[in-house]
Amino acid sequence: MRQDQILATYLIETPDSLEHAAQVLAGEQSTGTFVQVPGETDEIKEKYGAKILAIKELESVSSPSLPGAKLPHGENRPPVFRRGEITVAFPYHNIGPSIPNLLATVAGNLFELREFSGLRLMDLELPESFMEMYLGPQFGIQGTRQLAGVHQRPIIGTIIKPNIGLAPDELGTVVKELALAGVDFIKDDEINGNPPYAPLKERIHAVMQEIERAADRTGKKAMYAFNITGDIDELRRNHDMVQQAGGTCVMVSINSIGLAGVAYLRKYSQLPIHGHRNQWGAMTRCPALGMEFTAYQKLCRMAGVDHLHTNGLNNKFFESNESVVKSINDCLTPLFGGLQVMPVLSSGQWAGQAVETYRQIQSTDVIHIAGGGIMAHPDGVSAGVKSMIQGWEAALTNVSLEEYARTHVELKGAMEKFSK
Amino acid sequence: MRQDQILATYLIETPDSLEHAAQVLAGEQSTGTFVQVPGETDEIKEKYGAKILAIKELESVSSPSLPGAKLPHGENRPPVFRRGEITVAFPYHNIGPSIPNLLATVAGNLFELREFSGLRLMDLELPESFMEMYLGPQFGIQGTRQLAGVHQRPIIGTIIKPNIGLAPDELGTVVKELALAGVDFIKDDEINGNPPYAPLKERIHAVMQEIERAADRTGKKAMYAFNITGDIDELRRNHDMVQQAGGTCVMVSINSIGLAGVAYLRKYSQLPIHGHRNQWGAMTRCPALGMEFTAYQKLCRMAGVDHLHTNGLNNKFFESNESVVKSINDCLTPLFGGLQVMPVLSSGQWAGQAVETYRQIQSTDVIHIAGGGIMAHPDGVSAGVKSMIQGWEAALTNVSLEEYARTHVELKGAMEKFSK
Repeated sequence: MRQDQILATYLIETPDSLEHAAQVLAGEQSTGTFVQVPGETDEIKEKYGAKILAIKELESVSSPSLPGAKLPHGENRPPVFRRGEITVAFPYHNIGPSIPNLLATVAGNLFELREFSGLRLMDLELPESFMEMYLGPQFGIQGTRQLAGVHQRPIIGTIIKPNIGLAPDELGTVVKELALAGVDFIKDDEINGNPPYAPLKERIHAVMQEIERAADRTGKKAMYAFNITGDIDELRRNHDMVQQAGGTCVMVSINSIGLAGVAYLRKYSQLPIHGHRNQWGAMTRCPALGMEFTAYQKLCRMAGVDHLHTNGLNNKFFESNESVVKSINDCLTPLFGGLQVMPVLSSGQWAGQAVETYRQIQSTDVIHIAGGGIMAHPDGVSAGVKSMIQGWEAALTNVSLEEYARTHVELKGAMEKFSK
Repeated sequence: MRQDQILATYLIETPDSLEHAAQVLAGEQSTGTFVQVPGETDEIKEKYGAKILAIKELESVSSPSLPGAKLPHGENRPPVFRRGEITVAFPYHNIGPSIPNLLATVAGNLFELREFSGLRLMDLELPESFMEMYLGPQFGIQGTRQLAGVHQRPIIGTIIKPNIGLAPDELGTVVKELALAGVDFIKDDEINGNPPYAPLKERIHAVMQEIERAADRTGKKAMYAFNITGDIDELRRNHDMVQQAGGTCVMVSINSIGLAGVAYLRKYSQLPIHGHRNQWGAMTRCPALGMEFTAYQKLCRMAGVDHLHTNGLNNKFFESNESVVKSINDCLTPLFGGLQVMPVLSSGQWAGQAVETYRQIQSTDVIHIAGGGIMAHPDGVSAGVKSMIQGWEAALTNVSLEEYARTHVELKGAMEKFSK
């Protein structure tokens, strides 16, 4: 693609013609305003104006997806809301290699426009020069595998449960059990950051003590993603506490610290950054508004997350399996020829999803996280971990879960408890 | 209110009972997960669990506002989607005085839940101890008025147009004209940050030269809000460039740098922070999803913006006048007994909105911004500025626009051009 422009693809819905609505968007987000102003010369329009590259007409509907759209003047027939996919080219020299300023242009004051009854950013194609400013994932898939010591199968992870409420010593007890059970990866819940009842510093101490002790016994050091989410100054401080305690991963709520916060942390971080996308539902659940994951994950990767949440199959959220698989594939698709990120499959996961997940994605380069699915296994945590590995063994040897469970008691136990 | 809890009010829509949906939300965002885990004891639930304080039933609808809701088991009658407003109390000790971690709890992984076909955060009540961590607005209404030298009427502002494309010397020419015309306030467009064709540094130089020169002639120094939006490291650098050049205001795209970015800048800033809320439409336009401005503006004020965009009446966006007035009033309502923020009325504004705006808000503590409404005035920029002031004179003396225009030619010119 051309390196002097930024391409943004939108799903739009409008009571106007697709062409008119697209022109309004392009004008509003480049040289125009609601009225012609003297300085908006043809030369400026030519050099700095956004251009419509493609308009693909889709179906029409009789009622608007979003409120507040303005019907075209003078039309008194029942309104029709036309849907289409448009691609707009913004001159790169309007913006420069800046994710915050990119957002103001491609995802800024346009969702509000009355010319639209629906507008969703579907995808972005950016010049490679953005990567002169951003570092991308530091560890990615290979670096994470190396640190976790897990190869040729997914990294099997779990979440501390209950999500919140464990005192540091109680947390230590849970971590001990998980680490001795051989789990590859443990993460804090995203709602557990630096709570007054159990400050991060104390949690780090309690956790790393048990992780190191277990590693001495088993030879395997579980990767623990500490939730270091906080204000900007805290990110460095928290990161340092984790690193100095021997921790091997930090986690952030991407949308809480912003992509700018992620990029800031990445410049400094010595550890893989586990990117949790909570709040994302608010940006994506209305199909006619917000942003598609395809666009979002590119920005997250550029900013520098090493792991990125995608949900898993049959999750407890609204997201369909089709959408989950697309998200995982988005993450596994190289960006600028690289920027490897490891998709994190979680939410309502247990051993039972492994076979179908592998069938659909044909990759083991994922972190597969089961919270309740490991910690609530009827025969305990160790059996929970084993059941997850067995699920993936079944997947990789192309054997059905049911058949594999006949000779693998932990998988059998998981199926009896969790399959409905 | 109690200082040991955080109250969040949501508008919900669910195919379940309101009680059940509320319980799922409270559980998911505190101690629970999709299955009972051994460690979730009654003691932990009692101490760390979120509690439902109120459920107010609203209307029911027959089709879901958002996709992906799960119908209750065993029901085979046509589904009903119940709407209600619920208030949930989260223990403060789960979170601490941290906006990023607050967001993960009150606005995190809950918009996705299948128990809901609609979920919107309407309001937040927070303990004052948050303000031990955040600084709030540094200048607010009084400090901004003092710096701008404007009292007893709104600060009249404009936006550089065309939004983008002016070379530094061309920008200087526009600013000169505006400053000599006596405008109080000028802002960059939000899509104009630090573009390669006209870097911020050069723009600051070109602008401040003209502002100072005009001030020497007129005795009045226009406040210019430079768009310093960028990555975290750039915020300080850009702020310093503005300050060293004698600038009196910096502007940021709040949602581009994140609330954490705003709080970071605020700790350091010596200038009023002009908060632009672009991207906000994506968070708020779907009535059944995202966040209401009432909640959002509290977070922005705590983080430290001095000015906050609210749209103006009869704007070019989807937002109704009723919603605009509510937003302005939200901003003018003290928070923790203070945290003054100046609402910024913009979008499709010209002199014509002054009378109705004043009638509805009964305050002059706003920045009223007209881009095209000043720059496209038929008799030029100076007449544009005068027309805005005349509009507010009419409002404050309780005279209709039409009557005031009879003796005020600039207002008359504006009305002929812009009223439709």
